[in-house]
Amino acid sequence: MAAMASLYLKNPAPLSHSFAQPTKTHFAPPLTLRLRHGPASKTKYPTRISASLINPDGGKLIELFVEKSEKDSKVEQALGLPKIRLSKIDLQWVHVLSEGWASPLKGFMRESEFLQTLHFNSLRLENGSVANMSVPIVLAIDDAQKGRVGSSTSVALVDDEDSLVAILSDIEIYKHNKEERIARTWGTTAPGLPYVEETISRAGNWLIGGDLEVLEPIKYNDGLDRFRLSPAQLRNEFEKRNADAVFAFQLRNPVHNGHALLMTDTRRRLLEMGYKNPILLLHPLGGYTKADDVPLLWRMRQHEKVLEDGVLDPETTVVSIFPSPMHYAGPTEVQWHAKARINAGANFYIVGRDPAGMSHPLEKRDLYDADHGKKVLSMAPGLERLNILPFKVAAYDKTQSKMAFFDPSRPQDFLFISGTKMRTLAKNRENPPDGFMCPGGWKVLVEYYDSLNLVENAKQRSSMQIMGRCRYGFFPPFFIQKLLVLLHRGCDNKVDGLGEEVAVVAMVVGWDVVVASVMLEMV
Amino acid sequence: MAAMASLYLKNPAPLSHSFAQPTKTHFAPPLTLRLRHGPASKTKYPTRISASLINPDGGKLIELFVEKSEKDSKVEQALGLPKIRLSKIDLQWVHVLSEGWASPLKGFMRESEFLQTLHFNSLRLENGSVANMSVPIVLAIDDAQKGRVGSSTSVALVDDEDSLVAILSDIEIYKHNKEERIARTWGTTAPGLPYVEETISRAGNWLIGGDLEVLEPIKYNDGLDRFRLSPAQLRNEFEKRNADAVFAFQLRNPVHNGHALLMTDTRRRLLEMGYKNPILLLHPLGGYTKADDVPLLWRMRQHEKVLEDGVLDPETTVVSIFPSPMHYAGPTEVQWHAKARINAGANFYIVGRDPAGMSHPLEKRDLYDADHGKKVLSMAPGLERLNILPFKVAAYDKTQSKMAFFDPSRPQDFLFISGTKMRTLAKNRENPPDGFMCPGGWKVLVEYYDSLNLVENAKQRSSMQIMGRCRYGFFPPFFIQKLLVLLHRGCDNKVDGLGEEVAVVAMVVGWDVVVASVMLEMV
Repeated sequence: MAAMASLYLKNPAPLSHSFAQPTKTHFAPPLTLRLRHGPASKTKYPTRISASLINPDGGKLIELFVEKSEKDSKVEQALGLPKIRLSKIDLQWVHVLSEGWASPLKGFMRESEFLQTLHFNSLRLENGSVANMSVPIVLAIDDAQKGRVGSSTSVALVDDEDSLVAILSDIEIYKHNKEERIARTWGTTAPGLPYVEETISRAGNWLIGGDLEVLEPIKYNDGLDRFRLSPAQLRNEFEKRNADAVFAFQLRNPVHNGHALLMTDTRRRLLEMGYKNPILLLHPLGGYTKADDVPLLWRMRQHEKVLEDGVLDPETTVVSIFPSPMHYAGPTEVQWHAKARINAGANFYIVGRDPAGMSHPLEKRDLYDADHGKKVLSMAPGLERLNILPFKVAAYDKTQSKMAFFDPSRPQDFLFISGTKMRTLAKNRENPPDGFMCPGGWKVLVEYYDSLNLVENAKQRSSMQIMGRCRYGFFPPFFIQKLLVLLHRGCDNKVDGLGEEVAVVAMVVGWDVVVASVMLEMV
Repeated sequence: MAAMASLYLKNPAPLSHSFAQPTKTHFAPPLTLRLRHGPASKTKYPTRISASLINPDGGKLIELFVEKSEKDSKVEQALGLPKIRLSKIDLQWVHVLSEGWASPLKGFMRESEFLQTLHFNSLRLENGSVANMSVPIVLAIDDAQKGRVGSSTSVALVDDEDSLVAILSDIEIYKHNKEERIARTWGTTAPGLPYVEETISRAGNWLIGGDLEVLEPIKYNDGLDRFRLSPAQLRNEFEKRNADAVFAFQLRNPVHNGHALLMTDTRRRLLEMGYKNPILLLHPLGGYTKADDVPLLWRMRQHEKVLEDGVLDPETTVVSIFPSPMHYAGPTEVQWHAKARINAGANFYIVGRDPAGMSHPLEKRDLYDADHGKKVLSMAPGLERLNILPFKVAAYDKTQSKMAFFDPSRPQDFLFISGTKMRTLAKNRENPPDGFMCPGGWKVLVEYYDSLNLVENAKQRSSMQIMGRCRYGFFPPFFIQKLLVLLHRGCDNKVDGLGEEVAVVAMVVGWDVVVASVMLEMV
């Protein structure tokens, strides 16, 4: 699918100080400087630019789906295998692996891959080259599960309803030293790291690695599957659009006009460099996120509005969902975010302040230095082929009443609107300054926070309503049970907005309609 | 000095599982298997073997001493610079850097090198190649020191008596995130890590990096300086001896006959492979070690006896001291131990069970998996040129009354004598089984533990004696003060045996002689 990569704008590897003479700049120069070294610095239409996409890591995109012709025999084989039940997040990793985001990984990590990831953030390949791999993609099992696996060399992976998802073969079981995994991945062992609490703390003391064979593409049936393009599908899309450069923008927050400015500005610069058709991959993260992030469903609505309102050009923008769960591991994780996008065909990666960062769970400070993400990314083994585009700082320019690149010569004219500030405004149904975000997008945000309030209020009342109706025999008990589960999980923000939706709709249209729609979905 | 390396016994890089077909072996095969792939597998005298030593990292050994002709001007320059006072361990790192053990590092790390070390255990060099670098070599300063440095671009580094040691120029000051440094280096942040408590916990919140220029080779005047050969001196020594292979053995413990067996066996195998003159570098670590390790002075005496008693052949063995402090950081640190020996000319490195490991400071288990050290070492970036020789397990063979390689077919015949067991025997003045250690070496160990007991007893009495003599005006007060300091620091094992020596000698010959000798040393 992907032809040989022929876009190499990147300068030689960023230099560590002691070795760089005479300049003392260690890191990727900022966008303006970087691009000056690109082909356009010599000619408007550089000869080295071609329409082919960057090669996946390891040279080949690794998809791990069972051939159609083999499916029946695999299902039969699985019947005789020990079963491992996957958590929701495990399933997201199966999704990630199956589509080749982590190419050239062929399954959950065995110990050699796990150790290389923890110590070197990279894997050495058979041909001696190096692929970046910074977060462990592992499957934990407990003593009882290990016992059940026994001497079997393969296991069947099933979902929470015991449906067969995949087979893991040629397995290796090794110790899950959680403390070491956490310390080396996050650079802290402080309690309160969201991914750790969600998936590691209570996980088993063993990891099981092996080669993965997935029976069917993973679907979530949440109305968003059509946005979940695989790397292969994205590469097809870019080729269909004749992209000669693909620049990826990873996000897990609503898009404001500062982001949009940066993206359109990047496209302008790529055009100036001589690219004819740079395509933006607007790539919101769709896997696990922490409770106070805006859920995927609402973010996708917001992104949709941003495109509808013409803030971004749909012709040159591909919006798709990146299925990975979020680690919030800062400089370690940003490498994963960048590496996965290479596999999807992106050769430019936009990186901002404190990517994949969060507040320290115990101390009053950011967990990571705001600049470490882009510094580490610019030096990361296996990412030498990727052009790193550091964020230029955008802020609200009061003289122009719009988002603009910050001009340090007149700081008094600029207003910085942080994520916290933005959320507070939306929660209070206040409007940000004109031009901060397109009105349609802002409306979605306000609706989301409204729904949270509604849910909070509705939670008690609706529960009581449902219980009442149950008692009076309006609905069969298993419906009621399902509704209550949805409602309460939604209220805890564990399921992407589904519970909120149910509660909000119930407030408006009454429970009968909700129950009917649940019934329809179940059919 | 070092010609191009031409010894490449090593197989292609160890493969991570998913990429290795058809074999599923991830790691360096054991010694016997590894060597079979060496040149001797085809011919007794392989053509690729030459007498030249392995190249230092980065191609050139970086020594950081000021030229004699420039010394005066540097001293004058330093007079006008802000001063940073070095701790004892800082000074050991200056020693390490100055002689090129960390080549191609040219001084204390700047942030780009620090980040690469923490995240990748390696540094990318100007030519795109990679050098291993797994432990941060950094200099911490506090807010007040940072304030004093101000806008100066250079600083003078002085020892604890304010004597000028070095100049650090073209400096960069950056944040010292201790938690992240500790987590990423040790894989834990548990309190009680010896190096952390000794050097990091109370250190300043800033790191200062730059290019180092050292005025004079670092000396300790402890009677052991003659054993402290620099990498350049070691390379000269190996060339003088016409070494065509150098195999390094890192240790921080007394040598028993199991170690000796391993070393002589390694030499035998190298001869079998076609090497004509393999030389052993017996290379005890000489910098900071934790309180319950045997101090360097006593270890060196023990090693001397082992050579005297003919357990190792002095003709083919070079005993020298490796000046690095000890981190006890297991798989991370073993890479540093190996990398530094490449710079000293070693192309074979012997690695044992749980190298550089220790007990978890809080939990009842080893901090690291016993096999991770050799696994990580075999996959480490920048160490591809080094031949890793995994330890074969030696134990006491009761049927032969000597140390022998463990034979799993007759486990009942073998006795495993752990380090703890060995120390307990020596403390109790008991003898180990005949053939466990040469008698001369064992005697040194017993003497060491005797001295500890003596010191414990002598501590109170001697203090009182000195105080008494002070009161009666036998000695001038500043002598007494110095003696007390030495005595108490020695008893706390903070200074390599010096305090114990003073106390023990004082018990035997009386305080007058001790005072006289201190006086002589001070002259």
